[in-house]
Amino acid sequence: MNVNDPLPGCFITVEGIEGVGKSTNIQFIQDWLELNNIPYIQTREPGGTELGEKLRELLLHGGTVSDDAELLMMFASRAQHISEKIKPALKVGTWVICDRFTDSTYAYQGGGRQLNVDNIQQLEQMVHAGLQPDLTLLLDAPVEVGRARAAKRGAADRIEAEDLAFFNRVRAMFLSRAKEFKRYEVIDAAQPLEQVQVAIKQVLESLKRDLS
Amino acid sequence: MNVNDPLPGCFITVEGIEGVGKSTNIQFIQDWLELNNIPYIQTREPGGTELGEKLRELLLHGGTVSDDAELLMMFASRAQHISEKIKPALKVGTWVICDRFTDSTYAYQGGGRQLNVDNIQQLEQMVHAGLQPDLTLLLDAPVEVGRARAAKRGAADRIEAEDLAFFNRVRAMFLSRAKEFKRYEVIDAAQPLEQVQVAIKQVLESLKRDLS
Repeated sequence: MNVNDPLPGCFITVEGIEGVGKSTNIQFIQDWLELNNIPYIQTREPGGTELGEKLRELLLHGGTVSDDAELLMMFASRAQHISEKIKPALKVGTWVICDRFTDSTYAYQGGGRQLNVDNIQQLEQMVHAGLQPDLTLLLDAPVEVGRARAAKRGAADRIEAEDLAFFNRVRAMFLSRAKEFKRYEVIDAAQPLEQVQVAIKQVLESLKRDLS
Repeated sequence: MNVNDPLPGCFITVEGIEGVGKSTNIQFIQDWLELNNIPYIQTREPGGTELGEKLRELLLHGGTVSDDAELLMMFASRAQHISEKIKPALKVGTWVICDRFTDSTYAYQGGGRQLNVDNIQQLEQMVHAGLQPDLTLLLDAPVEVGRARAAKRGAADRIEAEDLAFFNRVRAMFLSRAKEFKRYEVIDAAQPLEQVQVAIKQVLESLKRDLS
């Protein structure tokens, strides 16, 4: 459990660039939680609430969105998500599995768009000082691997449509944060899915042991 | 012209609580600008752009919006407004008449909702360091006067539905900022409209003299 976070639930975030298998592996985590009779909710960012999903729609499929507006909308969605859904769940001991969180803002807006990281830190402090994930699973693979898989899914959204250099900066920011924060576990997502899931299961079992 | 702002256009914001006559007097300002052959645009916050108007709709008529989300969405709308509309107009010498701006965020979210004013200052710094209105017209009247007039307009939005104490805090914050910043001109909006407009015209004529 995070020292800053006295809430009884466990907060797991899943991060990574497009095409690294976030959805498949989030489903694997849910299956593991069910097998272990652990109460959980699965959610995502941007989004996760009625307001957040409307903001997500504006962010990913809307018209012109300036860099600053994008950053502020990400944190507006997050503020709503935390107060309406994440904290209430963690308070009653429910685990929260979240597809992307603030690390994605550092990676995409800070790394990808090269916005001022100080601004991201200020917003993080404003919106969730004291609340951090207990575990951040970073599914990592070379950008070319991820993009080849993501391309099979069809039309790209406003952010997915960025170029290779953008996603290389995103990946580099994720990896740099993984070195900085103990809550990160980096999983090599370029290996076969079976091996990816063996690695994820080991991390989950270890987390469960630490908590009991 | 604001010393921090080398843009050739003049940026006028109109502030005040509900029912003080903002719309009527903004129309009066537009008439004066046309009479003086001054190129201008008239706009509003939250809103003013396609994205901003969608955010406005979520803010005023949406479902649950947490205090932090509200504050961040106000500044998201503002960031878009400044980059897409306000700065481009000011750059080519067009005057911008804006119905509410950051002073309203201090008054409503800082005064009314009693959110941390340091956060508002940080966001202001992040979104428009160096850009401030050249003139802020504060239409001021006792809350009871404003609310009686606003009530005639019918259904209140999510913010207008707040109580008397809320609006007294909003008004107090406006008046406190008016003392702090030279760009403010306080107009007594409780007097008959004709006298209000004599006062506004004096302010505009004086601004025009200062600029020429």
